[in-house]
Formats: sequence, C-alpha cells, structure tokens
Amino acid sequence: MTAPDPARLALNAATVRKRWNLEQIIEGCARHGIRGIAPWFDQVGDLGLAKAAQLIRAHGLTVTGYIRGGFFSSANWLDENRRAIEAASTLGANCLIVVAGGLQPDSKDIVAARKRIVEGIATILPEARKAGVPLAIEPLHPMQTAERACVNTLEQALDLCDQFGEGTGVAIDTYNVWWDPKLESQIRRAAGRILAYHISDWLSPTKDVYADRGMMGDGVIDLPRIRGWVESAGYSGFHEVEIFSERDWWQRDPDEVLATCGIRHRDCA
Amino acid sequence: MTAPDPARLALNAATVRKRWNLEQIIEGCARHGIRGIAPWFDQVGDLGLAKAAQLIRAHGLTVTGYIRGGFFSSANWLDENRRAIEAASTLGANCLIVVAGGLQPDSKDIVAARKRIVEGIATILPEARKAGVPLAIEPLHPMQTAERACVNTLEQALDLCDQFGEGTGVAIDTYNVWWDPKLESQIRRAAGRILAYHISDWLSPTKDVYADRGMMGDGVIDLPRIRGWVESAGYSGFHEVEIFSERDWWQRDPDEVLATCGIRHRDCA
Repeated sequence: MTAPDPARLALNAATVRKRWNLEQIIEGCARHGIRGIAPWFDQVGDLGLAKAAQLIRAHGLTVTGYIRGGFFSSANWLDENRRAIEAASTLGANCLIVVAGGLQPDSKDIVAARKRIVEGIATILPEARKAGVPLAIEPLHPMQTAERACVNTLEQALDLCDQFGEGTGVAIDTYNVWWDPKLESQIRRAAGRILAYHISDWLSPTKDVYADRGMMGDGVIDLPRIRGWVESAGYSGFHEVEIFSERDWWQRDPDEVLATCGIRHRDCA
Repeated sequence: MTAPDPARLALNAATVRKRWNLEQIIEGCARHGIRGIAPWFDQVGDLGLAKAAQLIRAHGLTVTGYIRGGFFSSANWLDENRRAIEAASTLGANCLIVVAGGLQPDSKDIVAARKRIVEGIATILPEARKAGVPLAIEPLHPMQTAERACVNTLEQALDLCDQFGEGTGVAIDTYNVWWDPKLESQIRRAAGRILAYHISDWLSPTKDVYADRGMMGDGVIDLPRIRGWVESAGYSGFHEVEIFSERDWWQRDPDEVLATCGIRHRDCA
C-alpha cells in the first residue's frame, strides 16, 4: 500500500476532548493542517451551534460527521435526533453518525431493542432526507451492545441500509469491525454507501471496553489492508481519527496528539 | 419457558479454579448434585490424567467437554492438540473444546491467522476422529480476537464445520454469542452439530475483557430465550456454567458458588 494522502486526515473531536474545548480543537486542526473535523453534540452545545459553524467555516474545515444521532434506547430519542439533524445540517456535515443505542432500560430484550432501532430510523429518516443529512449507521463493537448499540456488524448495518435506501449509509470504524470474518466482503457490498471511515487501533491486551483505544500503529489492526478494501469499494473521503483513551491520549498535550495523528496516519494507516 | 431440568446442570471447572483443585471440584460437583464437569488441561495435568479419569468415573460424572484444543497460534500447537485429544479420549469427554487461537506472535495478519486455523483443524481432525473425540469449535467474543480466537461468530464456526464435516461441531457459549444479530438463525443452522452449551451472563458495564463474566441472572443475556433456540435445534445435552470472574465469583467460597449455580440455573437460565 502507498501511504494515504495527508489531505484525507480528519479528527474526531473526542480524541482530544478532555483537555481542549471545541474552539481550541478547531484551531488546533487548522494549525496542524488537519482538514476535516467531526464534533460531538455536547461540544457543539458548549460552544453554541452558530459559533461552531462559523469557526469551522472560517478555518475551511470539512465536517466529516456530526456525532451523534440514534440512541433509540433513550427516552428523548425523537427530540434528540431532531436537534442532531438540525445541527448536522447547520454545520454542513457530510453525515449524521447514528449510534443505534443499546438495550432499553431494565430490559434484556435484544430483539425488541433492534425493532426499536428500525422504528427509530423509519421515524427520523424523512426529516433527515428533507434536511439533506445522510444517516451514517455505525456498527459498534459487540462489547458495546448492552450500553451503546445493538447494531454490531457491518452486515447488519448494510441490511438496514438495504431496507431504508436513499439517505442511509454506513460509518466504518476500524476499531469496531476489524475482527469481523466477513469484513472484506461486507466492505465490498458497502460500495457507494460508505459515508465515513474512522481509524484507531486495537491494543492487546485491552484494559477497558470503552476508553482504551490505541493510536494507529500501536495495536494489532492491519489498517493499510482495511483502507485498501475501503478504497477498492470506491471510497475516497476522509480518514477520521477517533481515539477514546483514558490511560494515554486523553492525558497528553493535545498538540502532541494531533502531531502524532499526522505522523501515524502517514506511516501506519 | 419452563425451568431447565436440574439434571442438565454441569460445571466448567474454571468457575472455581482459584480456590479448589480438580479433585475438590469433582467432589464438590458430586456433593451439589451437579452431574457434568468440564476440566481444563492444566487442572488435569496437576491431578494426573489417570487419577482424574478414575475420580470422575467413580463419581459418575459426565465430562461435557475437555478444555482445550486449538490455539493454532501457539508454537507447540500440534503436540498440544495430540495430548489434548488423548486426554479427552481417556476422560471419555463428549468433545474437545477447540479455542482457535488468536493472531500469531508479532503479527497483525488476521487473514493468515484464519488460514492457520483451517490448516490446524485439517491436521488434527483425522487423529480426533480416530480417537472418537468430536471437535467442538467455539466462537469466542470478538473482544478476544487478538489473544485467544480468530473464530468469532457462530456462522464462521459453522462454515468450518461445513468444510470439515464428520467429527466437527460447535460449542455455543452464551457469553460469546448473545450479541449476534444472526444468533437465532445460526443456532437453527447448527442443529445436530451442537456439542456443548455454556452459560453465564454479561455484566453491564463489564470491567475486564476476559475475567468479568457474571452469574446467570446478574447480567443482560436473555438466557431462557437462547436456551429455547438451542432446544428447538434439538439440543438436549448439558448446560455448562463457565464463569471467569476475578472480582467476584473466584473470590467466593466454592461451595457457595456451586449452590448459586444450581439456584440460578433453575431460576434464570
């Protein structure tokens, strides 16, 4: 594999969320030559939607995704999704990342949770289409099923896209899908529907089921191979670094984190 | 669902491994009316194979599985598997549990690891057939891919069974597969090939990717529903409790653990 185009590097704003607010993150991206950003709803809420949109535009950044819609397990899912669609639209985001939500409170009924996800997407999709915001359904790692998402394989996410059609696609996050024995064939199937591509690494051994992601190159994911599959499927968009790391990257100077993202994107992704 | 037949309760010997040796575990099972046991290679090694076989026979226990074969990522996999087949045969085990093994040392090549697994099964299967020891291929949870097994879904395990035929089947462990959106259909597909059924629960949130399993009823797995699917597929064998629990069950009095297994099997599985 040839090295990826540095112009494709983007930053998921969670990667430096513990030490910088969104304004600092936007300025940091601009300073480090990172051309894409994916902000989270709480970060945008803190800064203000209009201000966030203005700053991102002023720095010429592409919004690779807005996080997040979905969470159909939440009591206020409908209002939350409407606000998310509006924010994604205002920010000019490439897509709204849909994290489906886990089991409903005090429930073990995963079949019901998955039905709720289908109903939720059916409800919000017309509004998303009207706003011109594609829904990027993101399968999360199976260890996140109970708390965050009962969509757990790329195949399952694509089945949803088949069901809903226009205005839906997938977000492929290497951390969530690298283990999947059907990954290559499902990425091929995803051609034309890959709305976002997220990169990080799987540390072995992993210390936490949520916040122990690794920087590209520090783990066991064959990132160039997966990028090859994604590119073969026709994807030519951003490579968004998304690292939740309580023990390591969240503790570091964000300028060091962003510089490292650039180096590792070039050398390891 | 009606409650399960208490005569179907079995114990995976890892569940009390920290405080009892295998002799104590065998006696504990007999004392608590648990009719099946699945010992691990190191426990059998400590007690001696002949002595283990003699004690298990003397107490009239069924060996629901011998752990473990596989680990084709290991340098000594061929010798280890030969010894495992011999031990499973001597113990009269219903099957040899095949934990496929993870990535090879210093490798990120999951495709190569999976090829090695196919080659490994092809190599040991003739010897297992000759010894009358069925190979139970066990998909492990995707969070175990790097370290323990690159077989991660029931579908993938059944594809291997299709490929190898006679003498192969699957071990279905609820902890490893509960999240799978294709679980019901793949259990149906597994009819006639379910060699072992393991139960425990998924704690939410989970504190460790290996040793934080829950007792049946303490987590979010809908165990009666999965048992219903397994029974509908024609399985009428043992329900083997397999709990690795550093923070809880490994710390408790094993007699309490075994008594709890009986109660929770009746009430929650």
